[in-house]
Amino acid sequence: MKILAFDTSNKPLTVAVVEDGKVLARMDSTEMKTHSVSLLPDIQESLAKSNLDINDIDKIAVADGPGSYTGVRIAVTVAKTLAFTLDKPLVGISSLRLLAANGAEGDLVVAVEDARNDNAFAGAYIKKSGEVVDVIPDQHIAMDDLFDLVKNYDQENMQFVNVSDHLAELIKQRFPKANILMTKESLPDAVKLADSAVNEPPVKDVNAFVPTYLRLTQAEHDWIKKGHKEDGNISYVEEI
Amino acid sequence: MKILAFDTSNKPLTVAVVEDGKVLARMDSTEMKTHSVSLLPDIQESLAKSNLDINDIDKIAVADGPGSYTGVRIAVTVAKTLAFTLDKPLVGISSLRLLAANGAEGDLVVAVEDARNDNAFAGAYIKKSGEVVDVIPDQHIAMDDLFDLVKNYDQENMQFVNVSDHLAELIKQRFPKANILMTKESLPDAVKLADSAVNEPPVKDVNAFVPTYLRLTQAEHDWIKKGHKEDGNISYVEEI
Repeated sequence: MKILAFDTSNKPLTVAVVEDGKVLARMDSTEMKTHSVSLLPDIQESLAKSNLDINDIDKIAVADGPGSYTGVRIAVTVAKTLAFTLDKPLVGISSLRLLAANGAEGDLVVAVEDARNDNAFAGAYIKKSGEVVDVIPDQHIAMDDLFDLVKNYDQENMQFVNVSDHLAELIKQRFPKANILMTKESLPDAVKLADSAVNEPPVKDVNAFVPTYLRLTQAEHDWIKKGHKEDGNISYVEEI
Repeated sequence: MKILAFDTSNKPLTVAVVEDGKVLARMDSTEMKTHSVSLLPDIQESLAKSNLDINDIDKIAVADGPGSYTGVRIAVTVAKTLAFTLDKPLVGISSLRLLAANGAEGDLVVAVEDARNDNAFAGAYIKKSGEVVDVIPDQHIAMDDLFDLVKNYDQENMQFVNVSDHLAELIKQRFPKANILMTKESLPDAVKLADSAVNEPPVKDVNAFVPTYLRLTQAEHDWIKKGHKEDGNISYVEEI
């Protein structure tokens, strides 16, 4: 099975073509790029390096959030359109689960994205024989509450990944022995995304597949605070 | 030539399949919809009604802004991904030009989108033998400045389209004899989008094709005002 996997949830752009566990091509960029301009050429180049045509792909895998509003939206829209056009199965993987795949085997791996004001988007996972198993579901949560959720785990076998400088301080205060992987040390990896997608059931209704933001983005929040009626995501995206 | 045209720049969703001027299928919705969920099924249904497969399409046409940040982004990303996957030409048409296509033959048609604070995204066009010709380029402009730009035209042959209640008041004060088409009377029409795309040269570099916002969105503006560094669109879309 040939899987095309890509993620633009955050600053890095990662694309891979993987066939039955063998990496045919991969492209990673940690530079700040315009994902809307770079994603399709990177997919194209990955296919070319794999000596494949887009029609040869058997499955599309995409990280579906939480993450950058526009970044997640671009990857999900490209993935949906490819799945629609090629009539191929589509698998969506949590962007936090993808980051947790960088953790150590057996550890409790807590993937965090700094959501400001001592909050995070976070989910906890355990890697067992290479599988990344969900232990605490992805959520938008205050760091103190997150610490309470994981406090019964042995902190020497606890690993926080994708950590910002500020969250690192909070984590060190509470769990001085926990292992910390900073953001630049735990970049999303489309090869791991493809691996996660092998046994994952495909999306049942590709059309209904939408990004997972877990809460309103800062921009939506500002918008609503300014007096615009909250009416789901739509009022924001339509009114802008 | 079979053209698939669609627009989700604003609240309406419009999709059409047109072959050599003949409308094979069209779908319009003025209800507030989640374009990210509805666009692909509406494309699919339009193709089914046309007895066509997506591979039969010869050209993709999309309205590329200005408009709703997310709406424009979704349509442009779907259009790019289709053009990429099918290896077919892509044409981008200004969302204001598409609205101006609703104007009367021979009139100066001024398409406006209310940008708050007595500003608009606006462009002026003249329809000649069905062709919509650009007279004043699309821009983000104060209504007073827009009025100055068009004041030498005969107001009895001047038509403002896609007008909000507030802009209607401003227009009536300045040009009492001008014709006004309110937003609900001048909905974007994918059939007209397809017509505009017939003779329009396709985008040279599909990958580099991005939406035209004409200025930062309100959300981006708020974001930057809050002290975040302006660094093109990217800093906003990446930091959220």
